[in-house]
Amino acid sequence: MNFVGAHIISVDQFDRAAADRVFEVADKMQPYAMRNRITRVLQGAILSNMFFEPSTRTRVSFGSAFNLLGGEVRETTEAKSSSLAKGESLYDTARVLSGYSDVIVMRHPDAGSVAKFAEASRVPVINGGDGPNEHPSQALLDLYTMRTEIAAQGQSIDGLSIALIGDLRYGRAVHSLCKLLCLYDNIRLHLISPQELALPGDIVALLKIAGHEVRQYTDMAEGIGGVDILYVTRTQEERFPSQQEADRYRGLFRLNQAIYTQNCAPNTVIMHPLPRDSRAQAQELDDDLNQNPNLAIFRQTDNGMLIRMALFALVLDVVDQVDNFAQPVTWFTDKRHG
Amino acid sequence: MNFVGAHIISVDQFDRAAADRVFEVADKMQPYAMRNRITRVLQGAILSNMFFEPSTRTRVSFGSAFNLLGGEVRETTEAKSSSLAKGESLYDTARVLSGYSDVIVMRHPDAGSVAKFAEASRVPVINGGDGPNEHPSQALLDLYTMRTEIAAQGQSIDGLSIALIGDLRYGRAVHSLCKLLCLYDNIRLHLISPQELALPGDIVALLKIAGHEVRQYTDMAEGIGGVDILYVTRTQEERFPSQQEADRYRGLFRLNQAIYTQNCAPNTVIMHPLPRDSRAQAQELDDDLNQNPNLAIFRQTDNGMLIRMALFALVLDVVDQVDNFAQPVTWFTDKRHG
Amino acid sequence: MNFVGAHIISVDQFDRAAADRVFEVADKMQPYAMRNRITRVLQGAILSNMFFEPSTRTRVSFGSAFNLLGGEVRETTEAKSSSLAKGESLYDTARVLSGYSDVIVMRHPDAGSVAKFAEASRVPVINGGDGPNEHPSQALLDLYTMRTEIAAQGQSIDGLSIALIGDLRYGRAVHSLCKLLCLYDNIRLHLISPQELALPGDIVALLKIAGHEVRQYTDMAEGIGGVDILYVTRTQEERFPSQQEADRYRGLFRLNQAIYTQNCAPNTVIMHPLPRDSRAQAQELDDDLNQNPNLAIFRQTDNGMLIRMALFALVLDVVDQVDNFAQPVTWFTDKRHG
Repeated sequence: MNFVGAHIISVDQFDRAAADRVFEVADKMQPYAMRNRITRVLQGAILSNMFFEPSTRTRVSFGSAFNLLGGEVRETTEAKSSSLAKGESLYDTARVLSGYSDVIVMRHPDAGSVAKFAEASRVPVINGGDGPNEHPSQALLDLYTMRTEIAAQGQSIDGLSIALIGDLRYGRAVHSLCKLLCLYDNIRLHLISPQELALPGDIVALLKIAGHEVRQYTDMAEGIGGVDILYVTRTQEERFPSQQEADRYRGLFRLNQAIYTQNCAPNTVIMHPLPRDSRAQAQELDDDLNQNPNLAIFRQTDNGMLIRMALFALVLDVVDQVDNFAQPVTWFTDKRHG
Repeated sequence: MNFVGAHIISVDQFDRAAADRVFEVADKMQPYAMRNRITRVLQGAILSNMFFEPSTRTRVSFGSAFNLLGGEVRETTEAKSSSLAKGESLYDTARVLSGYSDVIVMRHPDAGSVAKFAEASRVPVINGGDGPNEHPSQALLDLYTMRTEIAAQGQSIDGLSIALIGDLRYGRAVHSLCKLLCLYDNIRLHLISPQELALPGDIVALLKIAGHEVRQYTDMAEGIGGVDILYVTRTQEERFPSQQEADRYRGLFRLNQAIYTQNCAPNTVIMHPLPRDSRAQAQELDDDLNQNPNLAIFRQTDNGMLIRMALFALVLDVVDQVDNFAQPVTWFTDKRHG
Repeated sequence: MNFVGAHIISVDQFDRAAADRVFEVADKMQPYAMRNRITRVLQGAILSNMFFEPSTRTRVSFGSAFNLLGGEVRETTEAKSSSLAKGESLYDTARVLSGYSDVIVMRHPDAGSVAKFAEASRVPVINGGDGPNEHPSQALLDLYTMRTEIAAQGQSIDGLSIALIGDLRYGRAVHSLCKLLCLYDNIRLHLISPQELALPGDIVALLKIAGHEVRQYTDMAEGIGGVDILYVTRTQEERFPSQQEADRYRGLFRLNQAIYTQNCAPNTVIMHPLPRDSRAQAQELDDDLNQNPNLAIFRQTDNGMLIRMALFALVLDVVDQVDNFAQPVTWFTDKRHG
């Protein structure tokens, strides 16, 4: 895969070398994300951060990642573009907006819309989530987190065992992650969900074709034993046909410190694509795990910055120049590190 | 007209020398808009981009133009300023907000509001559209596009023949454009619209006083013959008394490749202030024209960046310094040029 | 008080030395706010400006203040964070978002929410208003304005006499201001309000404990005589149990030039936290005062920039570096000074 000038629309674009290249560049971004130094490599460049569906975290993460590379951000957060509302085609919107910026991140409620938009764009487009379909930067940051967490234990992604827990049917993050895992070897997956929210058959098939071992569980305690990583997900209530339907599954699987201690090896990594639902009736990941050093969920969102910086640097072809534009940090940063 | 520190509220402020000065500065902005190089001339300056009416394209275009000159952008996109909602006068809002920035762009649904706001402002104000009234940067970019497109054919604005097509009654872009055209000589205008959506009589009168030839048509095929430029407009549905009223005219005039080929000289330029309505029932400008090299609509929006950069540079008096703050571009830009 | 890395949540954090330190740094910011020169001291730093309640003025003021120090701003203006809507705790939101920025300003409708958020943040948090509770930067800019206005008359805050006028019950700005005034000596306060909108008893008690003289009035003309400063407030309609309840008090106290001339010494300073309600039925501060040189309300909002720049510089520990990163201003600024 040649990243320069490319659109990043789907995890299907990535082979193992491409994923590993993203991770290698993400590693390089660490000192900038940690404010050990700043870089001005993208000074003068403009990101158009277009979110046609509400998002705080992903939107701010992409915007901040671009700022950390020295670029400027123009943002759109309307539920529907006012021009689209007047009957403008995605083709026209893309032709117009790509004249205003150097790279575009787009989130849109309709599956396939970002790909269609990208076709007409004159600058690289990164998919920030197209409805139930794809969210490639999330899948990359999840896999990158598995890689870094498990590297600290002397392991690699090949040979890993992972439990995926919760709503595996509607969770777009889980689907994309599974596709990326197919690029690696010899993985064991424990799929833990109510039967009705099981991982779709086509994705299970892909995992098996990749040579991975797949086991399905409806009992969480049983499924979480003996794995390296627990990947817990929220019930994607907004994708369900009705709220009543969603309510049936809320709170069904709850991981807390007691269950963890009883069933898991002491260094089992806990991940979650966030947000986690902390309302009393949900709590798929209990707050009593907040002091557990293996709770990697906030390192995971921090990694999102690294991955998004890496994607920008790759498609805009500035990876090798980042360090040339480095400058010292002037302000107090100890709180972050402390 | 002295641009330095001026408010840009209406096309009525412009004489021919002033319009030509804007175009000359816009030409100078081309290498920066095309990312052949960047400039930091407005580093440290702040644009307050205040949109009290929905807009993606104009808002992002102004913001990006300011970023391209090296400045920062603070943005407001609320339907109504929360302070205005609490009974604050435009005078107070202007006095306050002009303390926070170096230049202000304002869009507001009420005619005359931006002029009133500007009176109290301590920094230059540019009208980004005050309801049905004025949108001067649109008129300037339209005229600039005519100038550059037709210059490629060895012509100038003087002596041009232009067909204005569609909703000429509610289209504020058309009205302002006509006023600017009055600064030039010997133009022939074909006004093509349903009788009820004809260009207002006072504007027709202005055109005639300027010595221009004005012909009115209700049949599009008849009116588009023998002109240099077709300026197609969308029905301004949101300005109509009712949706039913608007529906009567939707889809009445549709320009497509077949009609173009049959009636127009082969190098007739096609323009549109955008957004064009691509819904099946509208299509005033058919997608089958997208490959037509004379379709200038996306060059037209690109020109919007040049015009807005020029206006900022002129009112902030940095035209002669732009090149002094030039720097090389670090990132991949070939997609834009390709 | 040690500012470096601190959260600024409440005026209760400030002792007199701390308040005076903020004012001293604010003075230092004047040449940058007035565009006599720019500074790039925070180049590469990111402010996350999170407003979960509508605000134009405070939001833009914080954002512009950060830009004036050379930093970048990422903004959130949703009524409710989309993640909070999905059941995310403030703890999680804070842990996540503090990974994306170097300092956070947060406005939130719930009292205490910003303090709770700050506990989990890995970067300094400044309270931009937590509902009816606190808005410390407003209180600081009010006191700073009193100090600078009265310094021009050769006086200091100690020994000042101040009339507080209007809705003293729901006005959060007034409450915080009173708390700060307790840090100074020998102040005389005239509290002018309808009996039902009187200053809460606990705050009156604090003023008395501080040794200040407190007099209550229900007649404005009587109360405004013989004071140095008039601090007029808007009826906080949005905090009232009902609109009808609020309507009872609207327009009850109206200060205009005639009343001012009749009752006040000629150099009595007029302040207002803004926005002032200029609708015919309200007008707590008449527009006919706009030419009165003692009307300090726009100097007051300008001072908001200085105070917010000072707070950023203090918590990020760059006060002593600001001038080292100074550069000349390139653009036309005379309108502001004229």
